[in-house]
Amino acid sequence: MTTKAIITGGAGFLGQRLAAALLERGRLRGPDGRERELTRLTLLDLQHSERMSDPRLVYSGGDIADAALLESLIDDQTHSVFHLAAVVSGMAEADFNLGMRVNVDASRLLLDVCRARGHRPRLVFTSSVAVYGGTLPEIVQESFALAPQTSYGTQKAIVELLVSDYSRRGFIDGRSLRLPTIAVRPGRPNAAASSFASGIIREPLNGKEAICPVDRDARLWLMSPSTVVACLVAAHEIPADSLGSSRALNLPGISVSVGDMAAALARVAGEDVAARISWERDPRIERMVASWPGACDASRARALAFPSDDSFDAIIRQYMQEHVSISRGPAS
Amino acid sequence: MTTKAIITGGAGFLGQRLAAALLERGRLRGPDGRERELTRLTLLDLQHSERMSDPRLVYSGGDIADAALLESLIDDQTHSVFHLAAVVSGMAEADFNLGMRVNVDASRLLLDVCRARGHRPRLVFTSSVAVYGGTLPEIVQESFALAPQTSYGTQKAIVELLVSDYSRRGFIDGRSLRLPTIAVRPGRPNAAASSFASGIIREPLNGKEAICPVDRDARLWLMSPSTVVACLVAAHEIPADSLGSSRALNLPGISVSVGDMAAALARVAGEDVAARISWERDPRIERMVASWPGACDASRARALAFPSDDSFDAIIRQYMQEHVSISRGPAS
Repeated sequence: MTTKAIITGGAGFLGQRLAAALLERGRLRGPDGRERELTRLTLLDLQHSERMSDPRLVYSGGDIADAALLESLIDDQTHSVFHLAAVVSGMAEADFNLGMRVNVDASRLLLDVCRARGHRPRLVFTSSVAVYGGTLPEIVQESFALAPQTSYGTQKAIVELLVSDYSRRGFIDGRSLRLPTIAVRPGRPNAAASSFASGIIREPLNGKEAICPVDRDARLWLMSPSTVVACLVAAHEIPADSLGSSRALNLPGISVSVGDMAAALARVAGEDVAARISWERDPRIERMVASWPGACDASRARALAFPSDDSFDAIIRQYMQEHVSISRGPAS
Repeated sequence: MTTKAIITGGAGFLGQRLAAALLERGRLRGPDGRERELTRLTLLDLQHSERMSDPRLVYSGGDIADAALLESLIDDQTHSVFHLAAVVSGMAEADFNLGMRVNVDASRLLLDVCRARGHRPRLVFTSSVAVYGGTLPEIVQESFALAPQTSYGTQKAIVELLVSDYSRRGFIDGRSLRLPTIAVRPGRPNAAASSFASGIIREPLNGKEAICPVDRDARLWLMSPSTVVACLVAAHEIPADSLGSSRALNLPGISVSVGDMAAALARVAGEDVAARISWERDPRIERMVASWPGACDASRARALAFPSDDSFDAIIRQYMQEHVSISRGPAS
């Protein structure tokens, strides 16, 4: 038995890592719960710059809001859909229409294409802790109301609701994961309000200055890229009935203050590296970050054996191993 | 200073009562918080059968999903929008596409027409306790997560999210009210899963048999029609900053078991009347009703001085005064 998979946002940082993980794994569970050989993996994104070489890979360049394109890419053998494509938080706040079009309308189109095929694929949707907002308890339970204070969070919450209802009705077999802030991302800063959470580690490690736009006390709920990818695969592989009536899961991140992050950087890479962080508060970013939870209860994901990170020190070391060519010891 | 208002779903039972209340009141607060004289009240619905006679009334027959129609009805003097139009719960469950089109797409269209005008009207949206679902505590707090188990509840929850985000961005000044089940509705049974909550009182009072599709233990969160209308007006009139960051409010209903409702009917109208209820469980309706809260915390609405009903006995008496021509005393 064979199967096909598609990753929307497949050229993105997470999409690329997920693709590599799925190809390496080579198998995914089908609708009957049994493992099948992955024979085709389609990566959909606006454009593709890097291309991995694997006969199973299909690169599709196009707009996820294009119905005909989605219909051409998803057939009744496409049993696995990883829906990662999104307009990031800062962009969705700056351009409301764009956020609605991509984050809501294109997501719904994707769900409807899956529904029309009638083969009930497993669909893993990357939601975000930005669905939470307002006055939050110190540790946010999954039973806590979603009151997003950003358009991005609103759009993610809407798609969570759709994924749950489409699943309940048997149109798809969906799973929404509320991703923590991902750090450390390689590459360049992006328009996500959380971009600094990677920047204040990545830039200093690469010999550059970084500006931190929030206070040292600001608390983030974080997860490393490789752990996020492992969670996406785990979410795909668990049986639907282990989720009960709720299709949305908080992932087991770690809760770290921005001051702790800087201290971890000093411990792992040296005081001189950490000194490259300068602190300049930006009220626009502070407001968005303050509306997100600093810690979430993820006992359901833990009970389902989802992986998590050991510490922020370990996350920095992971980044250095993968991306920093000349490893630096602590300052002597 | 004058103002205009529109009621979507204006031919419906609630729309008609709200229209009468607004005309009687004659004044509504404008964007500056000051009262203005209501000079035009537009009732939009697919069709209008009864027509009240008032020079301020405009009847518009058409589809709320028609953008050109909405644009023609809402101008920058339309400072008040009461959005009641919806496909009811049983219908939205039976016809998924219709529910999405009316309950989600038309609502979003309405928000976008208001946004395009740029005058930030007050918009009162009738949401529902059906936004709640899953395993619920005995009394559901406003901070409790929305996990609707019906497509209707999902669609209402999505629009709540949009109303909050459009308000946060300053496109509208929205207020979403989570309406309890409304009883006693006059007229005929409809496709709402909660239709029986009125039917088991109304039909026996009109000399007819009624079937109750849920167990006596099933608990409902109820409000009378006149109290709901008073709450819609109250929601319009309160200042936006009294709502804080959350634009959705639980209304102060009363929590009654179906057995209590039958007992109240016997007390108010006689044992012989109550004996016209027969009990035949319908799993499809039971499942939907069981997913709704039996009681909600409405302390925020109470603090804002929203009205509530005294008892279910009083609700039955209200219905009898308004709709039952030959009043019946208790059986002797």
